[in-house]
Amino acid sequence: DVGTSVSDMSDPYGKEPRRHVALKPSSRKPFNAEPPLPLLADSLITPNELFYVRNHLPVPDVDAASYELELNDELSNNEKTLTLQDIRKYPKHTITATIMCAGNRRSEMTKVKGVKGLSWGQAAIGNATWSGARLCDVLKDLGVEDGKTDALHVQFEGLDTDPASMPYGASIPIEKALDSHGDVILAYEMNGEPIPRDHGYPVRVVVPGVVGARNVKWLGRIIVSKNESDAHWQQNDYKGFAPNVDWDTVDFKKSPAIQELPVISAVCEPLEGDQVEVKEGKIKVRGYAWSGGGRKIVRVDVSSDGGHTWQATDTLESDSSRHPHAWGWTLWTTEVPVGKGAKTGSEVELCVKAVDSQYNTQPENFANIWNLRGVLANAYHRVQVKLKF
Amino acid sequence: DVGTSVSDMSDPYGKEPRRHVALKPSSRKPFNAEPPLPLLADSLITPNELFYVRNHLPVPDVDAASYELELNDELSNNEKTLTLQDIRKYPKHTITATIMCAGNRRSEMTKVKGVKGLSWGQAAIGNATWSGARLCDVLKDLGVEDGKTDALHVQFEGLDTDPASMPYGASIPIEKALDSHGDVILAYEMNGEPIPRDHGYPVRVVVPGVVGARNVKWLGRIIVSKNESDAHWQQNDYKGFAPNVDWDTVDFKKSPAIQELPVISAVCEPLEGDQVEVKEGKIKVRGYAWSGGGRKIVRVDVSSDGGHTWQATDTLESDSSRHPHAWGWTLWTTEVPVGKGAKTGSEVELCVKAVDSQYNTQPENFANIWNLRGVLANAYHRVQVKLKF
Ligand SMILES: [Mo]
Ligand SMILES: [Mo]
Repeated sequence: DVGTSVSDMSDPYGKEPRRHVALKPSSRKPFNAEPPLPLLADSLITPNELFYVRNHLPVPDVDAASYELELNDELSNNEKTLTLQDIRKYPKHTITATIMCAGNRRSEMTKVKGVKGLSWGQAAIGNATWSGARLCDVLKDLGVEDGKTDALHVQFEGLDTDPASMPYGASIPIEKALDSHGDVILAYEMNGEPIPRDHGYPVRVVVPGVVGARNVKWLGRIIVSKNESDAHWQQNDYKGFAPNVDWDTVDFKKSPAIQELPVISAVCEPLEGDQVEVKEGKIKVRGYAWSGGGRKIVRVDVSSDGGHTWQATDTLESDSSRHPHAWGWTLWTTEVPVGKGAKTGSEVELCVKAVDSQYNTQPENFANIWNLRGVLANAYHRVQVKLKF
Repeated sequence: DVGTSVSDMSDPYGKEPRRHVALKPSSRKPFNAEPPLPLLADSLITPNELFYVRNHLPVPDVDAASYELELNDELSNNEKTLTLQDIRKYPKHTITATIMCAGNRRSEMTKVKGVKGLSWGQAAIGNATWSGARLCDVLKDLGVEDGKTDALHVQFEGLDTDPASMPYGASIPIEKALDSHGDVILAYEMNGEPIPRDHGYPVRVVVPGVVGARNVKWLGRIIVSKNESDAHWQQNDYKGFAPNVDWDTVDFKKSPAIQELPVISAVCEPLEGDQVEVKEGKIKVRGYAWSGGGRKIVRVDVSSDGGHTWQATDTLESDSSRHPHAWGWTLWTTEVPVGKGAKTGSEVELCVKAVDSQYNTQPENFANIWNLRGVLANAYHRVQVKLKF
């Protein structure tokens, strides 16, 4: 059928990969989707096929055999091109790191007042092992070393492009890029397999502790610079603002680009509206908690009365990495008591808040952290459920 | 007068230094005091004589000429003793760093429910320049280097002792101690002068971004270890707990020792109860904001209606250091509009909240962060004032 074939060829989204049926799309072109919350809480390491997908542009069709990564230091004018083979020659470094979209939980913030952005639930987050070459090792061979450069930023360009052939772009501060414990890697494996197409095949830069938007997929170019990336997503998106700032008054130059994300948590089970069985006066609740910047989760408090009383969860599960290099999330489980007067059909509001190793905690409500782009939605997660005795 | 002299000799607090009359004591033996808030906001660098004093024990009377610092690596059994002269031989490193007591603003948390601890206002915090030898340089000469030790903690002992001759003690994680950008220093100067007696003469370890309690004064011993300090202040104090934990149920082993402090802010002027002049519909408000862990303040929001509406402050003043090595605080000033119906005598509630470079922000109220020791009191600062037109 020539018609269909021609149509596919002209559609920039004609070569998208197959996706797991469980992923719930918030948009199809570009493809953006998250897994069901209970599945997310089932394992400390999120399976590749259930990892949320956040694409800004069509997925490029990259041939690993001819893949090239361009490197450029704008200060020394040093340049280099690496093949996948070249990248694999560097010592293979493996980390466990959570990646989260800045818009995770946006659908809750939207209830205060509308925002622009995809309507994410609570599952635009995942935790995986990533293997590859350390960025600091690769940059050293380009002549860029900690304490020996005047560069301030490292820019990344993807091989994904818009209709005008402009690539996706982002940058990170030089401190993170050159930190020998910063664990920024040019990853070619995700959970022990070649990185799936939706997650950046063949090479994605993983910047642990930092917002998904800077973990550039299908990495095509690295530029060491005095300047931030001038890409739209660095300059005019992925920034926070005070609640009074609207689209008439916003000045994107006034806010810093989001890098490390603040502490967040969510209930993964039960779900909003569920009827939940009460056993010995308690109900079972589980979910995740995470903080950017390598901060570790040290406590998760859960309430079954809308936040009037709290108890710390019994079980926190995480990998063994220590602050300030704890890049992975924490799964938590607890049995929380319900009020004495409760009976079958009673409605209760579950809430969760986490505390990280800097003793930062979450804001109570969305009103005071509302922002026009609906990012950084880390207020207490509140879930209404009905009890069943 | 022999009587008085004998009496002074037998009082462990008989040799305390003179203090500035503006310092308001929360206790006298040991001496603990904070300056008036408006003075605190007057300069980015807090003058030595106005810097809050938090002493746990009597101030030791140390002779710089005979001062000795003992060093011990429990893993290699390497030992060393340094004189002040020896410490001065290391490259002199100067940083600007804020130090804050974990109990700063406790008096606000107490209003929710009583806690144990000194009743601090909002001024148990100060910002100074500190000069001395880098701890990582000194430890390198002891044979302790990043990546080459199995130690997990560095312990500090003060020369201040309790009636049983036990010294004040604390420890920090090895990651902070050996981080070449961690800026932990054995400081012998505060704001360009020898460190005053109340602040640790002749040597204080300054651990920037970390709670005051680990910035041990009158430093007498450093121990590199697999273990945390077993001192009371590390094990059974300076920890956070969930709001439901009381003195009957508390298990200090279950919470991590506070190290880096979370984001905080306060209004320094006007003060609670002040009558404030309205000019062109606005009142002037100023204060400080700070975050531990080298996070920089990126925005301060102020409200004049109890937190219903907010605007970002116009002016943020800080030193030029960048995330994640921004150890110093930020002073802010703004003119915030008051509601249209307001007239002379109208009462308004000012609130402030800050956002740091990890986009962490403060909790709205104290109820959900209440803890039995009254530490980490970083909810929005709320100040009731009366307007004058
Ligand atoms: Mo994102
Ligand atoms: Mo303290």
